[in-house]
Amino acid sequence: MLRLTSYTRSVAARRAPFAGVLRGMASATSIPEKQKAIIFYENGGELKYEDIPVPKPKSNELLINVKYSGVCHTDLHAWKGDWPLPTKLPLVGGHEGAGVVVAMGENVKGWKIGDLAGIKWLNGSCMACEYCEKSAESNCPHADLSGYTHDGSFQQYATADAVQAARIPKGTDLAEVSPILCAGVTVYKALKTANLKAGDWVAISGAAGGLGSLAVQYAKAMGYRVLGIDGGEEKGKLAKKLGAEKFVDYTKHKDLVEAVQEATNGGPHGVINVSVSEGAMTASTQYVRPTGTVVLVGLPAGAVIKSEVFSHVIKSINIRGSYVGNRADTREAVDFFARGLVKSPIHVVGLSELPRVYDLMEKGKILGRYVVDTSK
Amino acid sequence: MLRLTSYTRSVAARRAPFAGVLRGMASATSIPEKQKAIIFYENGGELKYEDIPVPKPKSNELLINVKYSGVCHTDLHAWKGDWPLPTKLPLVGGHEGAGVVVAMGENVKGWKIGDLAGIKWLNGSCMACEYCEKSAESNCPHADLSGYTHDGSFQQYATADAVQAARIPKGTDLAEVSPILCAGVTVYKALKTANLKAGDWVAISGAAGGLGSLAVQYAKAMGYRVLGIDGGEEKGKLAKKLGAEKFVDYTKHKDLVEAVQEATNGGPHGVINVSVSEGAMTASTQYVRPTGTVVLVGLPAGAVIKSEVFSHVIKSINIRGSYVGNRADTREAVDFFARGLVKSPIHVVGLSELPRVYDLMEKGKILGRYVVDTSK
Amino acid sequence: MLRLTSYTRSVAARRAPFAGVLRGMASATSIPEKQKAIIFYENGGELKYEDIPVPKPKSNELLINVKYSGVCHTDLHAWKGDWPLPTKLPLVGGHEGAGVVVAMGENVKGWKIGDLAGIKWLNGSCMACEYCEKSAESNCPHADLSGYTHDGSFQQYATADAVQAARIPKGTDLAEVSPILCAGVTVYKALKTANLKAGDWVAISGAAGGLGSLAVQYAKAMGYRVLGIDGGEEKGKLAKKLGAEKFVDYTKHKDLVEAVQEATNGGPHGVINVSVSEGAMTASTQYVRPTGTVVLVGLPAGAVIKSEVFSHVIKSINIRGSYVGNRADTREAVDFFARGLVKSPIHVVGLSELPRVYDLMEKGKILGRYVVDTSK
Amino acid sequence: MLRLTSYTRSVAARRAPFAGVLRGMASATSIPEKQKAIIFYENGGELKYEDIPVPKPKSNELLINVKYSGVCHTDLHAWKGDWPLPTKLPLVGGHEGAGVVVAMGENVKGWKIGDLAGIKWLNGSCMACEYCEKSAESNCPHADLSGYTHDGSFQQYATADAVQAARIPKGTDLAEVSPILCAGVTVYKALKTANLKAGDWVAISGAAGGLGSLAVQYAKAMGYRVLGIDGGEEKGKLAKKLGAEKFVDYTKHKDLVEAVQEATNGGPHGVINVSVSEGAMTASTQYVRPTGTVVLVGLPAGAVIKSEVFSHVIKSINIRGSYVGNRADTREAVDFFARGLVKSPIHVVGLSELPRVYDLMEKGKILGRYVVDTSK
Repeated sequence: MLRLTSYTRSVAARRAPFAGVLRGMASATSIPEKQKAIIFYENGGELKYEDIPVPKPKSNELLINVKYSGVCHTDLHAWKGDWPLPTKLPLVGGHEGAGVVVAMGENVKGWKIGDLAGIKWLNGSCMACEYCEKSAESNCPHADLSGYTHDGSFQQYATADAVQAARIPKGTDLAEVSPILCAGVTVYKALKTANLKAGDWVAISGAAGGLGSLAVQYAKAMGYRVLGIDGGEEKGKLAKKLGAEKFVDYTKHKDLVEAVQEATNGGPHGVINVSVSEGAMTASTQYVRPTGTVVLVGLPAGAVIKSEVFSHVIKSINIRGSYVGNRADTREAVDFFARGLVKSPIHVVGLSELPRVYDLMEKGKILGRYVVDTSK
Repeated sequence: MLRLTSYTRSVAARRAPFAGVLRGMASATSIPEKQKAIIFYENGGELKYEDIPVPKPKSNELLINVKYSGVCHTDLHAWKGDWPLPTKLPLVGGHEGAGVVVAMGENVKGWKIGDLAGIKWLNGSCMACEYCEKSAESNCPHADLSGYTHDGSFQQYATADAVQAARIPKGTDLAEVSPILCAGVTVYKALKTANLKAGDWVAISGAAGGLGSLAVQYAKAMGYRVLGIDGGEEKGKLAKKLGAEKFVDYTKHKDLVEAVQEATNGGPHGVINVSVSEGAMTASTQYVRPTGTVVLVGLPAGAVIKSEVFSHVIKSINIRGSYVGNRADTREAVDFFARGLVKSPIHVVGLSELPRVYDLMEKGKILGRYVVDTSK
Repeated sequence: MLRLTSYTRSVAARRAPFAGVLRGMASATSIPEKQKAIIFYENGGELKYEDIPVPKPKSNELLINVKYSGVCHTDLHAWKGDWPLPTKLPLVGGHEGAGVVVAMGENVKGWKIGDLAGIKWLNGSCMACEYCEKSAESNCPHADLSGYTHDGSFQQYATADAVQAARIPKGTDLAEVSPILCAGVTVYKALKTANLKAGDWVAISGAAGGLGSLAVQYAKAMGYRVLGIDGGEEKGKLAKKLGAEKFVDYTKHKDLVEAVQEATNGGPHGVINVSVSEGAMTASTQYVRPTGTVVLVGLPAGAVIKSEVFSHVIKSINIRGSYVGNRADTREAVDFFARGLVKSPIHVVGLSELPRVYDLMEKGKILGRYVVDTSK
Repeated sequence: MLRLTSYTRSVAARRAPFAGVLRGMASATSIPEKQKAIIFYENGGELKYEDIPVPKPKSNELLINVKYSGVCHTDLHAWKGDWPLPTKLPLVGGHEGAGVVVAMGENVKGWKIGDLAGIKWLNGSCMACEYCEKSAESNCPHADLSGYTHDGSFQQYATADAVQAARIPKGTDLAEVSPILCAGVTVYKALKTANLKAGDWVAISGAAGGLGSLAVQYAKAMGYRVLGIDGGEEKGKLAKKLGAEKFVDYTKHKDLVEAVQEATNGGPHGVINVSVSEGAMTASTQYVRPTGTVVLVGLPAGAVIKSEVFSHVIKSINIRGSYVGNRADTREAVDFFARGLVKSPIHVVGLSELPRVYDLMEKGKILGRYVVDTSK
């Protein structure tokens, strides 16, 4: 039987002698040989709900008993195989898994059996390149990706590099935290990338969607003034409820640039492009405040952002790409959630229902975030 | 007769009581009523070499006896009036003037008659907006521009806001320093905008041209490793002579991106786009190193930079616009020149010959920088 | 009669032609020749409530009809003359004045008669030195100081350099905003100097005093987690009410360093030393988190901070001095107040009662901030 | 027999599939069972030149055949045991080892047999704490230290955590590079900590000593203007030869603060305190330029730095501690050396002579850096 032992992180513990941090492989009688998973054998092939073997952690890995996993658009791309980067095959998808450490390799430091742990998009990185050296491990050319090049969180037991696995504070709701591990970290990192200070205006383009809803909440918690941009009155209400001080409904303004600049007294200092429409992204280069920053964060296949050089220079603006967060970003994003400053609205369904969720997602019928319960 | 009194800036002087910094309007018997200038009365109209009145400095202005002035492509745009922003008319052009302070308004602080002073593109700014507040006065919406909205340096006596006028150290060669006041400051600011550290690779796209030649020298003096990019063997020789460690001749590589990444072991950390070709700018978004910065600095009418969103995000790159430098940038850029770390190769001709210089410029026959001597 | 015309700052206005920004000296029939002021003729001498002439603004100055002025400890130092820097004599003190622009010099840009304006400690700076160039005008060696080297706000009409005068939004309560102009800006700048990000811990040492109360509120509005440090239960209640998440009562812990580190899970990322006790400042170098920043902000005569070099290096900490804010800091600090995120608890008394306030201040009997009404 | 296989780091190699980066334990027939080492069994006890077993690398470690090792003052402290932190016992000292990878654990990524590798002070860190997360692994509370808590480089074969081991480019002189691995990285990191830009003045206090000589060279290569401070004419000559633009001989000035400020036109923007005299460190807080940074880098037992709070605030200075560099700092510091911009003057002696070197060091008779050849 699994027991959650407390994750004590007192000052005293942090000063424990080095040797005490090394842990051998635990004898874990409760770990089964087989488990349930959703697996596919070729890209776009059948999504099978099968019994597959429980993986063995390598010397540097944790074995995590995944309780819940969020479902992300990237999972759809991985299944279809429509991105330039090839996936592992057969593949178990998923990269927003939250669970409990049940075993670990002999080289793992800083974890204990029973700790709560998360499986992120970045499962592991080389720790040897210049990007890993400077904590930009997301940009590691040898990145190992959960649910893409490494079997992910749509199974009951998954492995994760101990260095990269997310640390989840004791007592956290594992279902609700799961989307934070990718969606939450991603928008939080994008907000950090905008390089704003408290009191600055930030526009969230696509404020009422899944990522946008989280972005509005993080932005408010970080002390920024939030302008939500989206289409329709309902979305405006939602954005304001989540913390947007103002809202621009793009369906009601013929000059979006003017409307945004007026709402923010000269343009937002930063823009988070959660919406990946080319038109919306290009508009953001026009309404952003001089010396401000436009952040790109989505991964639309084939899209191109255009910026008029003359005004780009005269206004001295920045267009920055922000990929997934690093370990510190993850810890911080989870901390905002754990402190109750960010809510994560979810629909929980059984893992076996994942194919139906993919179907809804393809049809654009998803509202909010679906989370699968691996026990069903 | 004009005498250069020494510009003493000892520590003691810097601590002088505040009151002592204020200077009244000097009695300047040597200032004539009339002077020579190149003036035009309508955009694209005749460039007349005429006697016009010497301007009177306002309470916040210096009157500078311009000795030399560089000639810049922007001057051609101002004459033609082909930019979106309207010029003053009639207009005396020029914004790279170097000379001597001969009079000043009663509200001027920190200047003395006889100080060497430079007339920059940014003649004055409002000192009241959020951009002026944070030393981004180039982005001031009320900027007053030399040779554009304010009569410039193609005359023997010109006025300049005392706050923005460039300080030139005693003993500096006024002919050679003049192009530093715009071209030099601009590339220096662009290099700062790239946010590099000593030892990083910077690519100068258009390394052997007027701006490029200065950029290579500044980059080397700042401790960066310089890759020059340009077309032709001669240009390669020049770039290397000026300090480029490597050179990529784009006429000899079918895959520029690959060539640049190979030369810099993975791509330059920063790129200064002195070349304003759309193709060159777009290529720079492809060869820049992950997490690196592409700087736009030229002002081509109508050009657009395009960046593929997917790789922009995955590589987490920045595209930043850099306009002209502020006062600190100017002081620093002049200091590099004064210390002999940057050479400014010039052709000196009489002011009366300016129309011929414009003609050569339009025909693309300019090599290096032309400087006019206002006494001829 | 005075009329407050609205300060319209629409996007259109910000793009108004440059010339339109210049204003001549207004014909201001309502400005009297004489006014009430508190003046002293020698340091420590009698504080006289007298009729003195209304000053004339210089070409670069505003004349402000001061409505209210905060009273600060620095005013006491100026009167006594116990700081190394000599004061102007005779002197009208005060540097937290809030009022209305009634006249201005012909060189003033960006202000209109009727605008609300504030008189700060930094009345004007040289705009010519390297510190002014980079927006560090507080560090200008030629700084002109309100109520110290320039007659201040303890009079009904005072002059202020138009570049440095604080802009106060229309509709702001002038009595409540006055302490923000020095105390508020100072703690806000100190918080910026700590270089924190949202979610970081900041300790306010002296959390329940005048500066501390403001610091706690600003810190919370900036998204930081606040630990208040002060002595006594009442102070703890106040700090928590203002936004402190935790409180350490130094009278109840024998090991302050341990208590602070435990409360913040390893030490605060930043410390604002509002308390100027040498012991408290030295303790802050011990409890601050590794790589964190200790900010010094008070100006105790003769105090010395000590830091043990070995741990300073091993922990890689910073000790940074933060002086008063620059123009941007002022605008931002006022904006937090105007948006209702920071409250300023004040006691309003007549200007004529200032000597009594000084007396209370000397006896340490001041709670909160006194503000004088210049009309009484 | 050992063969150096080439360390190819082409762009293609950097993009190699992840799996290819993992290497198993090499069959290394050339690795002996026993080796020569200098070992001591109690602090201050005999330094024995003995045959001891060759260590076995853990799954995350490299086994490095150490060719040369620098000798540092810290080694003396480790032997004596006079620092607060207890050492491992028995202990093999040394933390500036340069050699060749001869074996590695099965979990090692990014290394090949034959690569050149360096053993640094930071042998390994937990990779789990907030400091490791943000590339501040030097501040890791669980740091494992070469020659202190982990047997170091005064032996022919030593183990090092593969993540932290320094990468040395093929063809590098292993004797000369060894002092760069600690002394070089340390001063380079200190210079980065001063947060300067090219053209700024940096003072090196103790410019002609072992660390100072390196600091002067790095500072010059980084584009800074260098003021050397030390005592005596010979030292002045050396500092200038290494790149100092100016030199202040503290034995010849009664007012050091004034002399330094005059030489640097107002004070250096940064100061690197290589000298650990309390007087010198305190003076640096007085002569540093307003808004500038004083860096502490040495580890004198018991020393305290004092700063007068009033001027600390008014001048808005920083006092920052800089510990050893992280992995990126190490790579960069080695790169400056490999490019020939920094020279490392050394005396090579046999490992067996180490006790004599310690003796000279204790007597203060060391000039330059001693390096031991482990084969003798």
